[in-house]
Amino acid sequence: MAEERPVLAVDLGGTKVAAALVSEKYGISVRVNVPTLAAEGPPAVIKRLLETIQALLRQQELAPADLAAICVGTAGAVDMAHGLITLSPNLPGWHDIALGEIVSRQFGVKTHIINDAKAAALGEHRRGAGQGVDNLIVLTVGTGIGGGIIIGGRLYTGVSGSAGEIGHMTIDINGPKCACGNVGCWETLASGTALAREAQQRITQGAPSLLTEMARGGNITGELVEAAARRGDPLAQQAVARIAESFGVGLVNLVNIFNPGIIVVGGGMARMGELLFAPARRLVAARAFRQASGAVRIVPAALGQDAALLGAAVFAREQE
Amino acid sequence: MAEERPVLAVDLGGTKVAAALVSEKYGISVRVNVPTLAAEGPPAVIKRLLETIQALLRQQELAPADLAAICVGTAGAVDMAHGLITLSPNLPGWHDIALGEIVSRQFGVKTHIINDAKAAALGEHRRGAGQGVDNLIVLTVGTGIGGGIIIGGRLYTGVSGSAGEIGHMTIDINGPKCACGNVGCWETLASGTALAREAQQRITQGAPSLLTEMARGGNITGELVEAAARRGDPLAQQAVARIAESFGVGLVNLVNIFNPGIIVVGGGMARMGELLFAPARRLVAARAFRQASGAVRIVPAALGQDAALLGAAVFAREQE
Repeated sequence: MAEERPVLAVDLGGTKVAAALVSEKYGISVRVNVPTLAAEGPPAVIKRLLETIQALLRQQELAPADLAAICVGTAGAVDMAHGLITLSPNLPGWHDIALGEIVSRQFGVKTHIINDAKAAALGEHRRGAGQGVDNLIVLTVGTGIGGGIIIGGRLYTGVSGSAGEIGHMTIDINGPKCACGNVGCWETLASGTALAREAQQRITQGAPSLLTEMARGGNITGELVEAAARRGDPLAQQAVARIAESFGVGLVNLVNIFNPGIIVVGGGMARMGELLFAPARRLVAARAFRQASGAVRIVPAALGQDAALLGAAVFAREQE
Repeated sequence: MAEERPVLAVDLGGTKVAAALVSEKYGISVRVNVPTLAAEGPPAVIKRLLETIQALLRQQELAPADLAAICVGTAGAVDMAHGLITLSPNLPGWHDIALGEIVSRQFGVKTHIINDAKAAALGEHRRGAGQGVDNLIVLTVGTGIGGGIIIGGRLYTGVSGSAGEIGHMTIDINGPKCACGNVGCWETLASGTALAREAQQRITQGAPSLLTEMARGGNITGELVEAAARRGDPLAQQAVARIAESFGVGLVNLVNIFNPGIIVVGGGMARMGELLFAPARRLVAARAFRQASGAVRIVPAALGQDAALLGAAVFAREQE
């Protein structure tokens, strides 16, 4: 029966491609991961993606017709209506590629393309930390800040499918230029990348830090700054405090604009836990409108890397 | 018949109280204005408001039972679910006043309370510049910046009724403290108040300007700065350019976050026309995501001061 056919969900990232079968009840029955090798360019990556889907079907002894749909979640700008990957910072060379049509032709299965942060929002809303809340924001905070907006229980996509670029709201009118073309974007000031840069700048200016030794001549990463902060390194703690403040400033904006019931925070930075959440929550309590700040919970995501896969499956089923 | 009963709409402002009868088809058949005299405090203002409603009914030879509902739009924070004016910057002394219950008891008519910017959004959507667009933002830019969000054709109010405080998003993390408790709020940098302050600061620093003569020793207002800019005064033109840039920065945020079909701008500042709109639109085209900036129109409001009255009537009818 149609109702029991799984969705084949794909999470196409800059580092790896994950594919999974997601049941009607949003159980993940099987999953495969392969490296993206994004530097090889679109044709090679697309070939690998198609092979991964094929391998998953073969392994499960399924025919394409046994699938309800295929849905690919991916970083970057997506034209959902036409199944295009418009532009992706993590996938060099991808411009207006009709991935939906390519996959759909290959397997004869209806295929949807969705931004991965939007997919994660749907996943967290239906199966994760946002269950039961009608109006919420889901953030994916890592290298950048991705966003998904759920309004009235449904993904809000705007008039041309690009709503939710929350990481690209200006919070510093005099701030640095962002790769997106805007200035002082939230993600340039509150992402993992910003945390690493904040620490690196202080070290370059000559301040002492455990980080110099911990990095062993390699790059300073957000994870490393977090680890140094936990070990009591003052420079790392100052960098974390600065980024947590910037993170909180963006949350205040979202609370005042959306009056959401919950803001769910996923991605690599969410793993910092209270080191990030506690000061950000204090800032929201101090600065946002009371009627709104009193109504919002700011919590870590619950689904980890499954959020985008589950959300892609949700999206595919809702398009039927 | 119930369908033909008018809504009695009230616009309770810091300067005047306007009341009108609004028909089923959103015609305004009659209107009265009285001064608010807000400094006299809540009991005197409430008495005057009740008398104004009474006078309007008597003038039209209507009984309260001839009304479909009463709806009061007002500046400030409103708890719509309970008909409370929580706090209003333009109405000194108003804290958690149950105006809905007071009016409803007096006339025996169901009474709603709504923020005036939200009412204006409903008005512009149903009868003004936003007709036919499902996802839009309506801004009221004057002393401050008020906002109303329409999603899927309906007013979006959030989980506790306070969504849409768009004027209180931080666009300058190092900016001035706002009366709301937040810092660098859009309205502190892009309202009529900001325009006047911007010019005043330059004059205080000793720069020459026509404004010194035009103000004749009185206060420099936004209107005066606009007039001086139109007469070619360089200082006034610089102040306008600065405020238009800040205005555009906030618009970019709204375009990236909401991907709206239209942003409707009303309030005193909208009367500046292309002096404000042209540079703001250029900034949006240069900085916002193309998929979103290509889909949005940024236009002046169409209903002027009727927007809040008509929107209050829309709101009342939709609660039935």
